[in-house]
Amino acid sequence: MDERAALEALGERVDAAGDDCAVVGESVLTTDMLHEKTDFPAGVTKYTAGWRAVGASLSDVAAMGAEARAALAVYAAPEFDDDLLAFVDGAHDVCERVGAEYVGGDLDTHEEFTVATTAMGRTTNPVFRSGASVGEAVCVTGTLGRSAAALRLFEAGETERANELFQFTPRVAAGRAIAPVASAMMDISDGLARSLHQMADASDCGISVTESLPIDESVAEVAGDERERRELGTFFGEDFELLFTVSEADLGALAEKSSVPVTRIGTVVEEGVTRDGEALPDRGYTHG
Amino acid sequence: MDERAALEALGERVDAAGDDCAVVGESVLTTDMLHEKTDFPAGVTKYTAGWRAVGASLSDVAAMGAEARAALAVYAAPEFDDDLLAFVDGAHDVCERVGAEYVGGDLDTHEEFTVATTAMGRTTNPVFRSGASVGEAVCVTGTLGRSAAALRLFEAGETERANELFQFTPRVAAGRAIAPVASAMMDISDGLARSLHQMADASDCGISVTESLPIDESVAEVAGDERERRELGTFFGEDFELLFTVSEADLGALAEKSSVPVTRIGTVVEEGVTRDGEALPDRGYTHG
Repeated sequence: MDERAALEALGERVDAAGDDCAVVGESVLTTDMLHEKTDFPAGVTKYTAGWRAVGASLSDVAAMGAEARAALAVYAAPEFDDDLLAFVDGAHDVCERVGAEYVGGDLDTHEEFTVATTAMGRTTNPVFRSGASVGEAVCVTGTLGRSAAALRLFEAGETERANELFQFTPRVAAGRAIAPVASAMMDISDGLARSLHQMADASDCGISVTESLPIDESVAEVAGDERERRELGTFFGEDFELLFTVSEADLGALAEKSSVPVTRIGTVVEEGVTRDGEALPDRGYTHG
Repeated sequence: MDERAALEALGERVDAAGDDCAVVGESVLTTDMLHEKTDFPAGVTKYTAGWRAVGASLSDVAAMGAEARAALAVYAAPEFDDDLLAFVDGAHDVCERVGAEYVGGDLDTHEEFTVATTAMGRTTNPVFRSGASVGEAVCVTGTLGRSAAALRLFEAGETERANELFQFTPRVAAGRAIAPVASAMMDISDGLARSLHQMADASDCGISVTESLPIDESVAEVAGDERERRELGTFFGEDFELLFTVSEADLGALAEKSSVPVTRIGTVVEEGVTRDGEALPDRGYTHG
């Protein structure tokens, strides 16, 4: 089994699986694991690692349209030194950014630096991936490709700029503004293309991407031509923006309310995930 | 820094750290990481691993006197196969045992089998480690030494019996019954001796152990003499029973209400942690 087959098998056993968070009463809960080899390229500071690891879980809370309440982390490393305190500072600061409380966690001795994070949110009206209807607008928050740009900058040794790009703002405020009118929502941590497929599958519909994507300015620092920039924004992932569907009537008012730019990229259709009329590959960031 | 020094440094940075769970409004939250080399001896089935890993977090919820609501796990392994489904069955069953919902989690590719678990509970009246007062009775739920016995049975190849012993019942029901009268409570996952020291430190008091310990029957299967049995029950840890303090007046009624045996082992005193008048070493199970 690869990760996706395993997730399907799990979906049959765990009712609450399959969305960005599990819903438990008026709480939403999510947990993630990140580790050095695959998630933290050389040059990532422990402050950035704490920010990003906890931020990834807060992004899942945002994706449900929930208020972010609290986050926890397990910090596992060969030893506990100043790196641990830097990590906690980053975790604390990303929580503060979105109005959540960082409430600690656990320590574990582990050869490879590994982090497990948990976030809890609160909402009486969670938004799932499964509510999109034909004819609605398909939109994303913010910009795409920022993490892709950061990774190339890490490779090039421009670690200060890369760390800055890696410290993203989880879209909790935007998610709160979008939730009352969104029919479906998720974050695009696995990349836009894969996320479009996941939302289409969950909502039993198709999505037609017809507009140009809001590519982050930083992508121009690492990718010369237009086509490459678009590829990075479409398939790379880890951008932690929100993908959502909304009726055309609600879209105008939303653009005014949201604290970050909202860009319409396409339309919900009967079937198929396409860009400019051609099939968009279900390709992106999957472990395993 | 070892784990304890690091926890102290963290305590200064994270207000909510230092108890079995963090309290967030009327919710309590806890997270743990376990991994193959240190936590799952050869012979532990993945069903038992799922039960035990999630059970450890549910035990933290029990230690706050909270109702157990939900649990999550990150399952990290080199590949995802039937072991994953067995793990999820164990996680599901331990949740069912205590009335919680297993709501899934995440998968991660990792060389060493590693699990990060999270549990959420609910209470309006959490019990901390810090409330013990001089003169109160010091008590434990259930029996001690069961995990120590299991480990020796794993070593001896008696894996069926050992797996059975490793599947403990988190003391959620007992914790709910004890919470209204307890002044301090915690679980003894780090061993009785270390937990007595932690409670004494948190409550700024001492504890005098004067009674014999409720050693689990299984310990007799692996340890011949009385002294060795007592050592295993005192220092080994991972038993996931509750340690709590209560006034003498409330103790009698409690013994009737609690679903598991409650044994008084000593008394809260001004200072020092002693057994039969001699200093009890602060020794037990610490990573790092």
